[in-house]
Amino acid sequence: MAPESSNPTTPDAAKAQKAGLEDVVVGTSKICFIDGKRGRLVYRGYSIDDLQQASFEEVIHLLLYGDLPTKDQLARLKERLLSERKLPREVTSAIISMPHSGSPMAELRTAVSLAALYDPDANDNSPEANQRKAIRLIAQMPLIVACINSLRRGKDLIQPSPTLGHAANFLYMINGEVPDPRAERMFDVALTLHADHEYNASTFAARVTAATLSDIHSAITSAIGALKGPLHGGANEEVMRMLLEIPSVDDAEKTIREKFFAHKRKVPGFGHRVYKTMDPRATILKEFSRELGQRQHESKWFEMSTRIQDLIVKEKNLYPNVDFYSASLYFVMRLPIELFTPIFAVSRVVGWASHVLEQYANNRLIRPMSDYTGAGDRTVAPIEKRTPNAVL
Amino acid sequence: MAPESSNPTTPDAAKAQKAGLEDVVVGTSKICFIDGKRGRLVYRGYSIDDLQQASFEEVIHLLLYGDLPTKDQLARLKERLLSERKLPREVTSAIISMPHSGSPMAELRTAVSLAALYDPDANDNSPEANQRKAIRLIAQMPLIVACINSLRRGKDLIQPSPTLGHAANFLYMINGEVPDPRAERMFDVALTLHADHEYNASTFAARVTAATLSDIHSAITSAIGALKGPLHGGANEEVMRMLLEIPSVDDAEKTIREKFFAHKRKVPGFGHRVYKTMDPRATILKEFSRELGQRQHESKWFEMSTRIQDLIVKEKNLYPNVDFYSASLYFVMRLPIELFTPIFAVSRVVGWASHVLEQYANNRLIRPMSDYTGAGDRTVAPIEKRTPNAVL
Repeated sequence: MAPESSNPTTPDAAKAQKAGLEDVVVGTSKICFIDGKRGRLVYRGYSIDDLQQASFEEVIHLLLYGDLPTKDQLARLKERLLSERKLPREVTSAIISMPHSGSPMAELRTAVSLAALYDPDANDNSPEANQRKAIRLIAQMPLIVACINSLRRGKDLIQPSPTLGHAANFLYMINGEVPDPRAERMFDVALTLHADHEYNASTFAARVTAATLSDIHSAITSAIGALKGPLHGGANEEVMRMLLEIPSVDDAEKTIREKFFAHKRKVPGFGHRVYKTMDPRATILKEFSRELGQRQHESKWFEMSTRIQDLIVKEKNLYPNVDFYSASLYFVMRLPIELFTPIFAVSRVVGWASHVLEQYANNRLIRPMSDYTGAGDRTVAPIEKRTPNAVL
Repeated sequence: MAPESSNPTTPDAAKAQKAGLEDVVVGTSKICFIDGKRGRLVYRGYSIDDLQQASFEEVIHLLLYGDLPTKDQLARLKERLLSERKLPREVTSAIISMPHSGSPMAELRTAVSLAALYDPDANDNSPEANQRKAIRLIAQMPLIVACINSLRRGKDLIQPSPTLGHAANFLYMINGEVPDPRAERMFDVALTLHADHEYNASTFAARVTAATLSDIHSAITSAIGALKGPLHGGANEEVMRMLLEIPSVDDAEKTIREKFFAHKRKVPGFGHRVYKTMDPRATILKEFSRELGQRQHESKWFEMSTRIQDLIVKEKNLYPNVDFYSASLYFVMRLPIELFTPIFAVSRVVGWASHVLEQYANNRLIRPMSDYTGAGDRTVAPIEKRTPNAVL
């Protein structure tokens, strides 16, 4: 084995792929289809434009079970979600004990990992038990995020409402008031838009974990850890922090040029591995951001955003992704910036769970190979005879 | 988009790979090289056969920093590991509060995730901080596993010893007594043998998580969740449970035929995605299992194991992997069976951390694609007009 040579036993068929598995098909899925050239996102055959008219609960049914529900099926699903709208007392206590000065995603990741130990189906990994655990996780995640939020703001914990839908109850638990119907509707659609996105990094982390036949809580915990990263879910918070640094709408272009272009920094919220045109989710969220900004007499964030979009499209030929207009929308909805990524998780858990169940149903261990580019053969020298080498 | 058709926008270059990324090279690495045909495992140029003479601390230095240490470097590393041989009080309290009837790997996963919130470098993801966090995690994981073990057996917590090495201190904290030098040495080598294994499933989960630029605790948490699965680290426990079900050495073949072959069940501890011959780790562990069994006058587990090996090689043409002889070795070392996978994690965290640091140093988001095989285009019907479809 020569130093710096490539792995001599790599099978001929195993050619090195583009870095980061870009454009590499690693498996099949019946859940989600993205047409990156035309800017289309499709869940189980339905485009997200069309799915705007459905409720998030209908989309949960679609993603998890493969079809939109009938009235009866929807009623049954809502009942099940409602019956799981509670946290084990010990999970709440554990969140209370955590320090609230760090990352809320780290708190969420820990709480979901802990919830595994209190799950009534913890030791049952049958398909039926996994379906139950999926519903439970979808119902519990908003409660965990709301609990974390109350504690971080030094407020009393808010009990979930048994009369509100999934989206409205979450907004109520975050802001302490029942949202008006239009804001509720927009947030409901925002949850739908974030619910799945094919083999994105967090979903892939969940599938790699599940493919060892580890449990669904392990897989979702992996996904939360991956979503936390600034190259993934963490980007929507960065967008809002960028907008807040811009003194006024007319300063937008100048600020971006000075703070980003001049330092060759990437502007958050633009570009996407798969979309080569406008992200269809951004198109819908942009319109929501415009409408709600106007209604709240706080259009400046939307207007800044459009100025930035024009600039980046013109100069960098990059289009806004899902994170760009969700930032200004969530901000005028009075959602705390540090919750933007946890809110992404509250929605994406539906996709994660659907992918984990799909992985289990036709499993094969996901175990790739690497091309070895390290030191050639060497033998262990007695410690006295070693010379100090530059540490990596 | 026709139903059941393949994704029409998949780039031509992106051909579907073998399921589970088998034989697919997804990236480069300077850390570990496996020659699956010849049964060789090499860490940064040193074969594991040769590395048997080094201590686990030397191997930590090798994997993390790229070279075996000089005497001074080794002394410094040991000092740093020792200074981190303590758990935040709150992490210990949280483990005490957990139920101890479920999976110890779920407890470990949760404790490591929680430790992120108390890490002094929590908000610093610089290369220097990540190096510190790596050392801290390597030092803390044995303490977490020992704490979980004491609680599960209803025993008092054991304080770490400041005078023992990494392997000896862990054995002391598990069994309550300082191990004899030969057992310590074998366990030290066992840790070395499990420390890294190229892009195995848990390491790959860690790299996918890290590639979003999420933090190292997130990445290690993902890895623990992946290692938990019975197709990965969970297998060594299954091997021992299988041996315990065999009434006597002479019943081994009959029992395997009846309980496994007759039901077409896979025998745990055999076969490997990469090795097509004997796993070199199994060769070393087999000899340890033989020697320690003899010394403890408890050779039956070793003898059963060799009978099973002969049978499986002959009838299935499959070879023992790392999990097969670690089972009988750990059992005669009086290590609790339910700790076998957590012990794997205590060793593999070194490889995980090395891979995460390597990923950060030359990062690209790991975001593959899937081939869509689901429903063709359809439009949302009013809920009253939907017909109930068979739920997945």
